[in-house]
Amino acid sequence: MAALRAGLDEQRLLTDPDSVARFAHDEAEWAPFGKPVAVVRATSTEDVVTAVRACAEHRVPVVARGAGTGLSGGANAIDGCVLISLADMNRVLEINPREQLAVVQPGVVNDDLRAACRERGAWYPPDPASSPWSTIGGNVATNAGGVCCVKYGVTRDYVLGLEAVVGDGEVVRLGRRTAKGVAGYDLCGLFVGSEGTLGVVTEITVKLLPGVRAPERTVVGYFDSLVPAGEAVAAVAAAGVVPSALELLDRHCLKAVDDWKNMGLSDEAEVLLLGRSDAPGAAGEEEVATLARCFDEAGATWSAVSTDQHEADALFAARRLAYPALERLGPVLTEDVCVPRAAVPEMLARIEAAARRHDTLIANIAHAGDGNLHPLIITAPGDDAARQRAQLAFDDIVDDAIALGGTVTGEHGVGLLKRRGLHAELGQAVVGMHHAVKNALDPKGIFNPGKVFGDPGR
Amino acid sequence: MAALRAGLDEQRLLTDPDSVARFAHDEAEWAPFGKPVAVVRATSTEDVVTAVRACAEHRVPVVARGAGTGLSGGANAIDGCVLISLADMNRVLEINPREQLAVVQPGVVNDDLRAACRERGAWYPPDPASSPWSTIGGNVATNAGGVCCVKYGVTRDYVLGLEAVVGDGEVVRLGRRTAKGVAGYDLCGLFVGSEGTLGVVTEITVKLLPGVRAPERTVVGYFDSLVPAGEAVAAVAAAGVVPSALELLDRHCLKAVDDWKNMGLSDEAEVLLLGRSDAPGAAGEEEVATLARCFDEAGATWSAVSTDQHEADALFAARRLAYPALERLGPVLTEDVCVPRAAVPEMLARIEAAARRHDTLIANIAHAGDGNLHPLIITAPGDDAARQRAQLAFDDIVDDAIALGGTVTGEHGVGLLKRRGLHAELGQAVVGMHHAVKNALDPKGIFNPGKVFGDPGR
Repeated sequence: MAALRAGLDEQRLLTDPDSVARFAHDEAEWAPFGKPVAVVRATSTEDVVTAVRACAEHRVPVVARGAGTGLSGGANAIDGCVLISLADMNRVLEINPREQLAVVQPGVVNDDLRAACRERGAWYPPDPASSPWSTIGGNVATNAGGVCCVKYGVTRDYVLGLEAVVGDGEVVRLGRRTAKGVAGYDLCGLFVGSEGTLGVVTEITVKLLPGVRAPERTVVGYFDSLVPAGEAVAAVAAAGVVPSALELLDRHCLKAVDDWKNMGLSDEAEVLLLGRSDAPGAAGEEEVATLARCFDEAGATWSAVSTDQHEADALFAARRLAYPALERLGPVLTEDVCVPRAAVPEMLARIEAAARRHDTLIANIAHAGDGNLHPLIITAPGDDAARQRAQLAFDDIVDDAIALGGTVTGEHGVGLLKRRGLHAELGQAVVGMHHAVKNALDPKGIFNPGKVFGDPGR
Repeated sequence: MAALRAGLDEQRLLTDPDSVARFAHDEAEWAPFGKPVAVVRATSTEDVVTAVRACAEHRVPVVARGAGTGLSGGANAIDGCVLISLADMNRVLEINPREQLAVVQPGVVNDDLRAACRERGAWYPPDPASSPWSTIGGNVATNAGGVCCVKYGVTRDYVLGLEAVVGDGEVVRLGRRTAKGVAGYDLCGLFVGSEGTLGVVTEITVKLLPGVRAPERTVVGYFDSLVPAGEAVAAVAAAGVVPSALELLDRHCLKAVDDWKNMGLSDEAEVLLLGRSDAPGAAGEEEVATLARCFDEAGATWSAVSTDQHEADALFAARRLAYPALERLGPVLTEDVCVPRAAVPEMLARIEAAARRHDTLIANIAHAGDGNLHPLIITAPGDDAARQRAQLAFDDIVDDAIALGGTVTGEHGVGLLKRRGLHAELGQAVVGMHHAVKNALDPKGIFNPGKVFGDPGR
């Protein structure tokens, strides 16, 4: 504490329990969290260096966090840790359409970067549902996905370079500013998705695409149950179309959004599929026609190519609101499995079976075109028996995803909630390689210890 | 040797000096190479396990190679090593258009995979100039680029999963088959571009795109010197167009192709720029019009949108032939710097200055749209003074690329030739992280030791 006090502005260092507690966890309501001894609200790389140096010297755990919108407990405090909040390092340092890149501090909110790029005629694609709140640093830590990832890839595909504070407080630059580069290991890519276990990222260089895009065409499909909607998704993949979005919402989501925002969605459909194409001209027309045909042949009760941009945007806004709408009903245990596209119908059937088997309410949102499903297990507040049943359903879904050739986490990260699943998915030899890399780059074990692969239990 | 003889079919193990010598180096004529004690021509993962186990036990270096088309000595033999040739592991195991992936053995030739995908209506984009000969395993080892990378990315962007033989001969699977996945570190991405220093890759799962593409439109531009052609490239980037190819050839290349294939190219232009757009319909027409305008405004002596697909293909074939055509003139020292797009004219000017300063012949081919330049330094066979001057020019170009914010290798890899450049580019702390990762995953130091970052000298 003396080293922190000596090196930091007074108002950047929080130690009183009430202030500190506000930073102690992310939005994974089911994940445990401890008490930090201090919170450093960093405003510069130097602040982070000060904090990491002090922690390395005394072997105190360092946990970094952005906006705290994570869904797996990755940013949750560990007892006795120093928590570094990067939310105030929120400056866009450079937007360079000519080099197709931007340089940002980690606390920049995703939507703010996207808006700043738009003003300069450029586009930063990764768009997690949390984009109005989550930060680029957090997106990097979890390798966040989003709605347009089915066509445009995830955060890692857009991170060209990083500055990070590592080891005992050294500042390193990983990656590059050029379009290509193969000088040495892809340590930049290794840091993306490492959930703060290798160091603290203090600056990010991201790749941009041109800002001029063809207007998107939207196809809406109504289904009377989950499995046919899943079959429509598999049919789209088989047809060789890569839509710019392909999202699924079930009736629990539609109802929750209606109850909150009164949009009247759940009167119309049990399951909603939303497809988009941003291919220009005739190619786009063809793509949406193919999407509509796939929906119909899989048994859609109704489908249409939307001609009303306002209506289409409202439907995608509803998709973005689904998660907060469901959170209003009670603690949500969020799943994030990703399976091969052809396995989407089977996985949806298994999720329904898990819900029945464990007598628990499971709502489904999905980046369906990626096979990335978000079954959301909802329990009434304070109902411990329901919580136990929910945990059993969660474990079954994780095991089913692995059995179908999938992964336990498509975009939220492992954090605390998916550690058992990670061990089951990767196996001992590969987990051993993770430990070796972790120990090599964090020999004192101070960076977010215990997260991701630290504990083979839950 | 006893362990190798016991575990391998007789004809898979070569030990007589003449047979072994044929596998001792790649196409980097300037890179030193040693004598292997044996060559294992692997036909299965088990063969590789046998070889790695024996080498781990006796701490013998293991060097893996595919077709040996590398340009930086990465696959060159080390004295006393066991060389594992993966060229005979050349089966395409699965092409799955529905999941948009293929699974291949490492010895599959790039063009063979691309042809097999085409038959199934799918597309594997990475297209290094060596695609008729180089293998996917070698492409993975160096994270190979190519002509279409300016729009579609490099090998790493298409590798979803790997099987590799690591450590003492353990077989591990890294990565995934799903569209997304964030379970643990991106060890799969770490292996891509690691040039055989972390293990031997024995199977590769690659991502595919839909095979139906709009026909490409080609724009040809003639320039009377390098710098205006570089300015055209920078102007294309500034205009916000991402072409599907943007290649540069100078008169030395054009002349070498003419002398070999009699195409009559060098009568027409001192420098040739070849741009392509694969955007469909009106969008594609707009893109090629923008390319042509950028060419003209930068000072093209002639430009045209080619209406003749045959002629356009011939020009791209000439680009592919440029490297072997130049090799006919004498040993080629191949550069592979990559600079920010806006720095392309300045870098081209510095390359010309280096050629003049050191009185050496430098031809230029470039994936210009990526800022990835291949100055090719050509010396007469047996002229030692010319070789010394060439090496000085090579070093100057590397230093200039770093000074302009670029990298010493865009797509060929570090191998032996770029080690000094890698150290200069990355700095001591980041090289230290490389050593830590290398030691963690290869504690016995048997995998391709001394390559990439092993020796800070030349």
